[in-house]
Amino acid sequence: MKLAVDAMGGDQAPGEVVCGVLDALEFLGDDKVVLVGREASIMEQLSGDNGWRGRVEILHAEEVIEMGDSPISSVRQKKDSSINRLVELGASGQVDAVISAGNTGAYVAACQLRMKTLPGVLRPGIAVAIPHASGVSVVADVGANVSCRPQNLYQYAVMASVYYEKLFHKKDPRVGLLSVGEEESKGNQLVREAHELCKADEKMNFVGNIEGRDIFGGICEVMICEGFVGNVLLKVVEALVGNLMETVQAIAREQIPETAAALVPITRGIQCRYDHSEYGGAPLLGLQKLSIKCHGSSNRQAVKNAIRVARNLAYDHLNEQIVERLNK
Amino acid sequence: MKLAVDAMGGDQAPGEVVCGVLDALEFLGDDKVVLVGREASIMEQLSGDNGWRGRVEILHAEEVIEMGDSPISSVRQKKDSSINRLVELGASGQVDAVISAGNTGAYVAACQLRMKTLPGVLRPGIAVAIPHASGVSVVADVGANVSCRPQNLYQYAVMASVYYEKLFHKKDPRVGLLSVGEEESKGNQLVREAHELCKADEKMNFVGNIEGRDIFGGICEVMICEGFVGNVLLKVVEALVGNLMETVQAIAREQIPETAAALVPITRGIQCRYDHSEYGGAPLLGLQKLSIKCHGSSNRQAVKNAIRVARNLAYDHLNEQIVERLNK
Repeated sequence: MKLAVDAMGGDQAPGEVVCGVLDALEFLGDDKVVLVGREASIMEQLSGDNGWRGRVEILHAEEVIEMGDSPISSVRQKKDSSINRLVELGASGQVDAVISAGNTGAYVAACQLRMKTLPGVLRPGIAVAIPHASGVSVVADVGANVSCRPQNLYQYAVMASVYYEKLFHKKDPRVGLLSVGEEESKGNQLVREAHELCKADEKMNFVGNIEGRDIFGGICEVMICEGFVGNVLLKVVEALVGNLMETVQAIAREQIPETAAALVPITRGIQCRYDHSEYGGAPLLGLQKLSIKCHGSSNRQAVKNAIRVARNLAYDHLNEQIVERLNK
Repeated sequence: MKLAVDAMGGDQAPGEVVCGVLDALEFLGDDKVVLVGREASIMEQLSGDNGWRGRVEILHAEEVIEMGDSPISSVRQKKDSSINRLVELGASGQVDAVISAGNTGAYVAACQLRMKTLPGVLRPGIAVAIPHASGVSVVADVGANVSCRPQNLYQYAVMASVYYEKLFHKKDPRVGLLSVGEEESKGNQLVREAHELCKADEKMNFVGNIEGRDIFGGICEVMICEGFVGNVLLKVVEALVGNLMETVQAIAREQIPETAAALVPITRGIQCRYDHSEYGGAPLLGLQKLSIKCHGSSNRQAVKNAIRVARNLAYDHLNEQIVERLNK
């Protein structure tokens, strides 16, 4: 197996990305990694370590899509960017999975422009594992498709269920459809029609409509929503966790200064627990090759995790099983 | 001025509602309150107190719409319910504001069915004040209208700005349009078209598109979104605050048991800070009479707050100013 990693993607690239790849060699066995990006910058990070020779290849790409670049136009204009070259490796079948911590919009746009969807898949969707007090939930879509049709939501439900099964080795996750009330009649037309499609699929463990609060409630393991809603939700959760933990710290320093220091590892631990990079990044489900988006702030540990998860998902035939379920 | 309160609405009705009304008498002056609901139940709560006579009236309503009742059908079938009778008081102009902590869907449905909208208003929207570490933001709509048109979002921006000005006595709040990226080109068609409408209004302090994380970021004071998205967002925030504070407590009890007790007032305080009932409930903006929805868990303090805020907003000509701004 061969996996390709965007060496230039993320706030801490290429240093932490290359380190993450080197760390991943411990479990990669005979599998190989292609690092895509500026050869000189990558070589600089690799120098002093020889364990990678024969196991890590470099594909030079002259340009870099920066985090602030406009997604669509940078993908179109920076032809020789690491993101474009990375995605082409997947599209041409030269690697089994592609991984980037770079500009989310550009990466998703490149994947959608250059890769085919799996047979039967109408639109790809991004799934993300959101940890909470009582476990982990997978939410899809969180931003690939902001104008869904009911059939898209139904397919996200199937694909995210397979992803959940492969990620956590648990069968038949319960699937909830995000709405504004639990009753079947609630929600907009999109949700009402998607509800019918999910209900009609006897193979799906569909529990019906759920509400925003149920994301932390243990009602279901997989939550489905339009990309617009999912993106807002994900960013609200990320920001609120940080915001609240800082508030706890600030008030503690003021009101119980003698014990505030003891709280630091607790609030940091909670921030880590809610950090979805723990689960190896977010897959763009439904594309011909496994495509993983890591958080822009990914460090070497997050990159290593992403490589591990991508490899496991590929060996576990995630894509093949998605095709099988959707075309039954 | 006369305000009507749903005596039967909320988890702690009628006890806490009636107590909240009695507490509000301290600032009501010559203004009067109509308590709507089962006369015998209300009288039971009033007994032993005579300060209310001549200042509180009772309008008997035989039926109660329970918190779990289906919104539309209960409004249609329970004609003599406190929610229906309450809203009729507003619709017929007998009172200046109506307040309920009952079944949200039923109350909103009753208001939309029985009350006219203000001149020029296409659809009412629910605004809610969401407190956070750096202040308070007003978000609209959080669930009245799950299938918006661009013009609806624009009107929510105008109405929520006026509401913010009246609530906090600060002029020209910055308005952000919730999307999946800051660029003008981001988002779905609804957001792109609403963006144009907001940008074209020179009287609006429009800062452009914002993302989910910006709700806590101090970029703007007023945030506009479709009711479906706003409802999910509000419920996610409510649930996550509770979830995180419980997690902090649980870990502290385990890891620093000797100081965990000192944390209780801090986590409780944060939960209170994020409690939007502090701001007097959520107005359903754009209706002929001021209509306030209080949280289902409202206690006497929350009911008292809601009466105070409703009265201030009515004296401050919230509705008149909304009409003036929209029809300029």
